[in-house]
Amino acid sequence: MKLWQSENSMDKDIEEYTVGNDCLCDQSLVEYDCIASIAHAGLLLKMKIITLLEHKRLVSGLNEIIRLNAAGKFKITRKDEDVHTKIENWLTKNHGTAGKKIHTLRSRNDQVLTALRLYSKDGLAQVKEQAHDLIETLGKFAKKTKGIAMPGYTHMQRAMPSSIALWAGAFEESLKADIEILEMAIWANDENPLGSGAGYGLPVKIDKSVTTKGLGFSRHFSNPLYVQNTRQKVELATLFSLLQVMLTLNKLASDLMLFTTKEFGFFSLPKSMCTGSSIMPQKRNYDALEILRGNLGAVSGNFYAVLACASNLPSGYNRDAQLGKARLMESLDIALKSLKIARKIIMNIEVNRAALKAANSEGLYAAQRAIKMSLEGVPFRDAYKIVSKSCQ
Amino acid sequence: MKLWQSENSMDKDIEEYTVGNDCLCDQSLVEYDCIASIAHAGLLLKMKIITLLEHKRLVSGLNEIIRLNAAGKFKITRKDEDVHTKIENWLTKNHGTAGKKIHTLRSRNDQVLTALRLYSKDGLAQVKEQAHDLIETLGKFAKKTKGIAMPGYTHMQRAMPSSIALWAGAFEESLKADIEILEMAIWANDENPLGSGAGYGLPVKIDKSVTTKGLGFSRHFSNPLYVQNTRQKVELATLFSLLQVMLTLNKLASDLMLFTTKEFGFFSLPKSMCTGSSIMPQKRNYDALEILRGNLGAVSGNFYAVLACASNLPSGYNRDAQLGKARLMESLDIALKSLKIARKIIMNIEVNRAALKAANSEGLYAAQRAIKMSLEGVPFRDAYKIVSKSCQ
Amino acid sequence: MKLWQSENSMDKDIEEYTVGNDCLCDQSLVEYDCIASIAHAGLLLKMKIITLLEHKRLVSGLNEIIRLNAAGKFKITRKDEDVHTKIENWLTKNHGTAGKKIHTLRSRNDQVLTALRLYSKDGLAQVKEQAHDLIETLGKFAKKTKGIAMPGYTHMQRAMPSSIALWAGAFEESLKADIEILEMAIWANDENPLGSGAGYGLPVKIDKSVTTKGLGFSRHFSNPLYVQNTRQKVELATLFSLLQVMLTLNKLASDLMLFTTKEFGFFSLPKSMCTGSSIMPQKRNYDALEILRGNLGAVSGNFYAVLACASNLPSGYNRDAQLGKARLMESLDIALKSLKIARKIIMNIEVNRAALKAANSEGLYAAQRAIKMSLEGVPFRDAYKIVSKSCQ
Amino acid sequence: MKLWQSENSMDKDIEEYTVGNDCLCDQSLVEYDCIASIAHAGLLLKMKIITLLEHKRLVSGLNEIIRLNAAGKFKITRKDEDVHTKIENWLTKNHGTAGKKIHTLRSRNDQVLTALRLYSKDGLAQVKEQAHDLIETLGKFAKKTKGIAMPGYTHMQRAMPSSIALWAGAFEESLKADIEILEMAIWANDENPLGSGAGYGLPVKIDKSVTTKGLGFSRHFSNPLYVQNTRQKVELATLFSLLQVMLTLNKLASDLMLFTTKEFGFFSLPKSMCTGSSIMPQKRNYDALEILRGNLGAVSGNFYAVLACASNLPSGYNRDAQLGKARLMESLDIALKSLKIARKIIMNIEVNRAALKAANSEGLYAAQRAIKMSLEGVPFRDAYKIVSKSCQ
Repeated sequence: MKLWQSENSMDKDIEEYTVGNDCLCDQSLVEYDCIASIAHAGLLLKMKIITLLEHKRLVSGLNEIIRLNAAGKFKITRKDEDVHTKIENWLTKNHGTAGKKIHTLRSRNDQVLTALRLYSKDGLAQVKEQAHDLIETLGKFAKKTKGIAMPGYTHMQRAMPSSIALWAGAFEESLKADIEILEMAIWANDENPLGSGAGYGLPVKIDKSVTTKGLGFSRHFSNPLYVQNTRQKVELATLFSLLQVMLTLNKLASDLMLFTTKEFGFFSLPKSMCTGSSIMPQKRNYDALEILRGNLGAVSGNFYAVLACASNLPSGYNRDAQLGKARLMESLDIALKSLKIARKIIMNIEVNRAALKAANSEGLYAAQRAIKMSLEGVPFRDAYKIVSKSCQ
Repeated sequence: MKLWQSENSMDKDIEEYTVGNDCLCDQSLVEYDCIASIAHAGLLLKMKIITLLEHKRLVSGLNEIIRLNAAGKFKITRKDEDVHTKIENWLTKNHGTAGKKIHTLRSRNDQVLTALRLYSKDGLAQVKEQAHDLIETLGKFAKKTKGIAMPGYTHMQRAMPSSIALWAGAFEESLKADIEILEMAIWANDENPLGSGAGYGLPVKIDKSVTTKGLGFSRHFSNPLYVQNTRQKVELATLFSLLQVMLTLNKLASDLMLFTTKEFGFFSLPKSMCTGSSIMPQKRNYDALEILRGNLGAVSGNFYAVLACASNLPSGYNRDAQLGKARLMESLDIALKSLKIARKIIMNIEVNRAALKAANSEGLYAAQRAIKMSLEGVPFRDAYKIVSKSCQ
Repeated sequence: MKLWQSENSMDKDIEEYTVGNDCLCDQSLVEYDCIASIAHAGLLLKMKIITLLEHKRLVSGLNEIIRLNAAGKFKITRKDEDVHTKIENWLTKNHGTAGKKIHTLRSRNDQVLTALRLYSKDGLAQVKEQAHDLIETLGKFAKKTKGIAMPGYTHMQRAMPSSIALWAGAFEESLKADIEILEMAIWANDENPLGSGAGYGLPVKIDKSVTTKGLGFSRHFSNPLYVQNTRQKVELATLFSLLQVMLTLNKLASDLMLFTTKEFGFFSLPKSMCTGSSIMPQKRNYDALEILRGNLGAVSGNFYAVLACASNLPSGYNRDAQLGKARLMESLDIALKSLKIARKIIMNIEVNRAALKAANSEGLYAAQRAIKMSLEGVPFRDAYKIVSKSCQ
Repeated sequence: MKLWQSENSMDKDIEEYTVGNDCLCDQSLVEYDCIASIAHAGLLLKMKIITLLEHKRLVSGLNEIIRLNAAGKFKITRKDEDVHTKIENWLTKNHGTAGKKIHTLRSRNDQVLTALRLYSKDGLAQVKEQAHDLIETLGKFAKKTKGIAMPGYTHMQRAMPSSIALWAGAFEESLKADIEILEMAIWANDENPLGSGAGYGLPVKIDKSVTTKGLGFSRHFSNPLYVQNTRQKVELATLFSLLQVMLTLNKLASDLMLFTTKEFGFFSLPKSMCTGSSIMPQKRNYDALEILRGNLGAVSGNFYAVLACASNLPSGYNRDAQLGKARLMESLDIALKSLKIARKIIMNIEVNRAALKAANSEGLYAAQRAIKMSLEGVPFRDAYKIVSKSCQ
């Protein structure tokens, strides 16, 4: 039964349409919601709204839920409405009055924000770690291939002499910049929403630092409506930081798709990392690279879905926000898995030195010849024209 | 084991990353893929590639799979790779040589396109039917509320006299136009891709009309590469037609959210169709309307994901296309459910005549007064100015 | 002075922010707005709201504006507010009472819709014509290159034997399908909005067929609010049809960018169609192809801008719609120019037969060998495995 | 004539299509490109590539261009190709050999990045300043309306007691968070690209700190290919920060559109800030609010155009990037003007105390009554049920 119902009388179609698959997402929030509730119980104890005994029961109940959930035994179904309702009902059933008190000075509005921010902070930290690992792998790859020349391209045409190491280094740098954006997203999530209630605060003063410290937030909110209004803005900050990571990986995958064609032939991957064709016996396809490349589109779509659901709506909680939850979670998952697979791919690249040597064509050095002349006193534009003629 | 493998040696991480959750989508394609395979078996029989007995075994095998699937007993898992591999393997295991022959003159590339188009045609037909039902419901609602005035708004300000019937009628017309766009999307899907193989045709002439008639397509393709290149273009046509429907429903929901505010107060919904608040005992929220409104954002995001995965890629099958499958299916599902719920909502609107009467303010009639004067000979712009002064 | 003002007292900042660059777009609407006004004057005459003489003066005045505009002498500035105001003021100044009567039974809301639909219909017709021309050019190119083999690619890897003609034919077919979508967009625009007024109709019955016939619309609206509500839906239909065209051209350009790399080397363009580098004297870049490819992104962004401005808004005219005007016009222009340039490019492709011959490698024929065996009685899957072994 | 041309022989259509309206954008870059060239001349002097006299001529020439440009006398036309070519040609024409030397150790690729980053940093700084000003204005408005109650809404329904000050404060906080994101975007732009050349560095070691200090960048790049690869990633960071600002303003405008309806009636704006209707004499429309709201859609579309042009492309400069320039510039302009207009609007809000008082309905206090009971010992869930019954 829902928290706000005196009797279970909700229209079934409306219920199904409204909840949708949200209960699947909420399963991923169980642990975070319990951790947040433990911190909130600490506040209620401090304010003497619950007794020491009730506090003990709530904390042990919530830890029990975390254990049950880890064991796959705390399943949220559509009729539970959401994770918050399910947990309160479980606590009330198993711990009586203590359960009935846990929602004091709290709304599901600040509760879901808290769980989502804890979830996002965790996810972003993992993405950051994977980004660091990929940087390390790229560094090793650059070292391993040190000195191997590769053409540098502009407009997809051979342009200037480059090297595998320079190419790999570009992605190291790109990921370092991405990590800075991930930090920005972590910062955006790092504000404690507890105490904002339904978006208009509480009729009694509370010590926000209790839950802020307890949950490891670096700051607490100062205007309760602001907190609600930024639900999707913060989600977009998270998604944007993931987009930056995916843009880096998309370019990596686009390059590799080109470099592994028969025509370029610079790189290949071992057979165990390729797929075949159901009809063409000779094929070796790089499907993982294509999925890596395509996942930028997936995260882009998720970004837009959240943006669209946030546009042109007035202040205060609007249920449309729920639709971003699955997209946020999927995007964190995609970024994490994509970084891992990119690392595995880089570790297994087989370099075809002969093809790279053959590609190291004369024309690549034209600019260097002009620049050399310019250093010897010929005005650059004149040097350019002299070399240009010799290229025709 | 995959069709293209001599031994099962694929890297587990690569396999997991590449297949992802695609097997969940493929579950929805089992029936369509079997139907398409039955038609294809007809071609193989006609071309004497399979015997009459082999044809019989294939047809009965495929029908058996349809039955098993309907009973939830034909589960595609990640290690099956995809629906096509699973079905061929099952046929070979249960029907020997006949199974080994089913993939003659076919590629998974034309196979997946066929299944997706049959799936989309079916889904779009259902959406059309639901749109017709909603039109009917709106018509009944207009009839029921005949004669009840309601202000007409521009710029969200009261503008001119209108009525509930006029308002409801606007959505009837909008859905009628949407149905035309749905027809366009059905047309886009209504081309038989079988025989295009991997995108470069077959080394032997086939009679394409066998499968075209067998599967109810209205035409067959004429250039095999074109067929592959339009995978995402056709998906976008489907998604665009759903976007049009969702735009209609988004405006309907946006209006209803406004008309059910305390301040407008024109309409309300019965309590059984509302949700409550976990903290505010007095609340009656219209969450279903918000999800109806928000689902435009969800479909918009899906449209963008497919568009992004299609951009800047060369001709021929690219695996990135796989990522559109889940988004296409989700969008068809959203549109279908949204039309149904909109209908239920319209059927249950409670009209507050008093509020509507009170809103029927004097100012609404200013333009009519000016127009009336203009019909009596005063140049309209002069009439406008006379009435304008009287309004200040 | 604005039509609705008794004195020119509008805040300058607000005026500038509201009008923005809309007056630039309105310049392109002058002719269409005059044509629509001439048709409207016909209605006013029929209804005896204006005299025969007034009708004559209006028609000659409006034709004069068309002439002035063609000569660049009818400039809309920010203080004119918009094209409709400018024209009415000009008529009143030059033709007195007749001008004051032109706005009878009309609102700028139905007027701008009419002008935009006439503009879009015209633009779409031109796009269609250019698409036909490009189809013809591709056909000639296919004929000219008849018999020249080219590898067919899947997953960007060589897959099966193909030909330049097959490749070019894929784009012919794609454009034919695009033309069907363009027809749908023309259909969407082909509804006469005149008589819907501000969105709530008129207090007097009019004969809508007068302007419908006069302006060449194939049908007239039946619900005035619906007409207003579809402003952006119809614009999106136009933009979607252009997106389809741009998707075709994007793939064409993506292929050509690949085929003109040094590594593929199948095609090149004459020097007069390439750009150079400011620093690398040897470079020959295919910038026009890159812009052709990138313009899909431009039209995609325009589509999203209009979609975003339409989301989550209630019924009736909302000024946000104005922001789509520039994006609609730019997109029509991009599609038109892109089709033209694509044609010029196709006409000038230089084919490198030697590179194509060298690319026609053995492996491309593996599937054909397996299929041939299958036609001779070996079950296809067995044939596949036999050929597969020989490829390793 | 272009820098890379020996004779002016470029196909006119190709030239027009490739350059498009880019020369209009480049006009805005003249000053930034000159400033960057002055810094670069400093490097050339230090490296003794130019003489002290040549340096003097270049610096005075570039300053002259800045002056000419400020006076509208340095017009870039399509045949000038771009700002960089125009400036070099002008310098060569007016200062001979010095002009021919300015492009030594530089490519237009690093040059355009430098100009765009300087432009963006400047624009973002202005946006930040305007955001600060709006915060101040909101603070004053909150002070001025201190103590005036306003209902707080969730799901667009009256929820809990709030106040104008709380509402305004939410936007102050939102802008403060936006400023942090703007700082992130400034950081992203704050890296000196000079010395990266065409994306593959220079064949001679340079002291990057000369231009880094000279141009006020906080750091210089370390991998030249990375610099090119981040062109659009950095533009997206800029656009994302503007999106955050526009999301804040979109919500502000959405609230105001609601609060200024006849039905809510909480606020109004003076007549000088409203527009009228061409047909309805009584209308007072809030067009500026609608444009403010709609401009989120415009910036969203621009974000997507840049993202789409960046997707699925390989490393190194691709001309598609050019298409983002106009969208970046337009977005900075929109954000700047929108913040200014929002401020003017806030300063002019007229508060309707009577309507606000009437809206302060009993139901708003239900949660507070339940919370109060819970503080007195009744378990919250029981208190909720008790109050709930009294509300029915």
